[in-house]
Amino acid sequence: MRATNKQAAEPVLVIGNNPRSSALATALTRAGHTVTVWAPADPPDAPAAALATARVVVLCVGDYDELWRVLDQVEQPMTGHEIVNLTSGTSAQARQAAARVSALGGQYLDGALMAHPEHVGDEHTVLVYSGAERVFQNNESLFGHWGSATYLGPDAGTASLYDVAMLNFAWATLIGYLHTATLLGAAGVQARTFTPLLTRWLKATVVDVIEDYAAQIDDRKYPGEEEWLELDAPLMDHLVRASEEHGLDAALPELIASLTAKGIDAGRGRESFASLVEVIRTRR
Amino acid sequence: MRATNKQAAEPVLVIGNNPRSSALATALTRAGHTVTVWAPADPPDAPAAALATARVVVLCVGDYDELWRVLDQVEQPMTGHEIVNLTSGTSAQARQAAARVSALGGQYLDGALMAHPEHVGDEHTVLVYSGAERVFQNNESLFGHWGSATYLGPDAGTASLYDVAMLNFAWATLIGYLHTATLLGAAGVQARTFTPLLTRWLKATVVDVIEDYAAQIDDRKYPGEEEWLELDAPLMDHLVRASEEHGLDAALPELIASLTAKGIDAGRGRESFASLVEVIRTRR
Repeated sequence: MRATNKQAAEPVLVIGNNPRSSALATALTRAGHTVTVWAPADPPDAPAAALATARVVVLCVGDYDELWRVLDQVEQPMTGHEIVNLTSGTSAQARQAAARVSALGGQYLDGALMAHPEHVGDEHTVLVYSGAERVFQNNESLFGHWGSATYLGPDAGTASLYDVAMLNFAWATLIGYLHTATLLGAAGVQARTFTPLLTRWLKATVVDVIEDYAAQIDDRKYPGEEEWLELDAPLMDHLVRASEEHGLDAALPELIASLTAKGIDAGRGRESFASLVEVIRTRR
Repeated sequence: MRATNKQAAEPVLVIGNNPRSSALATALTRAGHTVTVWAPADPPDAPAAALATARVVVLCVGDYDELWRVLDQVEQPMTGHEIVNLTSGTSAQARQAAARVSALGGQYLDGALMAHPEHVGDEHTVLVYSGAERVFQNNESLFGHWGSATYLGPDAGTASLYDVAMLNFAWATLIGYLHTATLLGAAGVQARTFTPLLTRWLKATVVDVIEDYAAQIDDRKYPGEEEWLELDAPLMDHLVRASEEHGLDAALPELIASLTAKGIDAGRGRESFASLVEVIRTRR
């Protein structure tokens, strides 16, 4: 909605040399932007000439060591530049990057792309941003070419925490899927056979449970009306046994059973599975 | 499609006294069936009178100990009875129940309801069945009142394995969600705030990844074109560190990082995360 012809043609510098930076650059080129790609591994150039090509700079390098090397090579003030950093890292690293860019005179927005590179450009792909609100507002339509854009607030560290928290969710879901696939695979059921059933169930039932848990977590009340830890525990024991009987690494079901046992020990046996947030909050 | 007026009015006996058995009975009553509910905890009745009320018997008791007690009380042949057992348990228990019902003259179908009781009756609720195919065919339209019905084959143990494998997937997904909620909660982000973003991302991006992994698993080829274990590993270390910095139990991210490290040690560093099925298949 903020897009103008001028904005649509805004030149963009993308710093990075990896599948994510390529996907980001490609999406902008397709949308009509003039994109310069600068691969920081190319020695010994300083990025001065590259920086002269664009006001908007997208940083998406492999890690923060590489990012510090890029910033070390900046020889002149970045005044007038808007730096959008999509490099994956911790909140502390994002805040440090914000401080260094500010010291160079640039305006800093941190961002997190929570998808594989092939999903960049899909409207359902989620990207979150935090840091300089002005940079977000100025470039919201540009960000729209990558996916949905959500601004989370002025702390540059928030997007990275979101990133790592969502990755945690994805990895837990995927490792659960892989364990399920090995379990059914051991009984001769192909992944292609059961996966459509699993994803249908995930999108309907499991998503409903997650939405229900969101309210329980915020309210810190975990009514065990439909399911409760003591009801789950014997099924978890079945799961551990079935995994072992099929010769699988049972670390995942053992972890689930162990957290549940801790919850029951803490007096939450009649509360829902969501009450395990209280167990996770209590450092071992 | 097989429904006739006679079938719609078919009397059904539901044996059980728990939220799941109640939900199953209620859905059938709503659909016009005459339903008798028999709670096996009621001493000292044998189920003979109850069994006389219906040809189709739905067993959904708390556990297999309770189920054996119910079968112990059956004093006369079950010839002509179709027994559908939705009690949660292992494949071995399901096969044992099938043998006992067969010895009593009944026809046995095992089933698994993979949803909370409140989702019984929703067309998206998944139920799977295995065992006597004739029983499935005769009652497919009746099963349709509970949710979608899929027949998995003649081995009575398959539905239970599916059940426990899907529960594993749900628990892994939900424990991942709870860990994510505690991580963001520690930074002051409410679960209600980020959950719509998370479920949108889950239904689009994560489901796409799962479907991609299904093919990789069946083909036992894990091309690390878009993501690979060595790319993931440093992000997992960030996750463990972020969890510890916020004072959380880091067992879940540590498990993810540890399985990934095992995969890299096994020479799969350039393969996708899906290659961890090979690690899970190798018993510790």
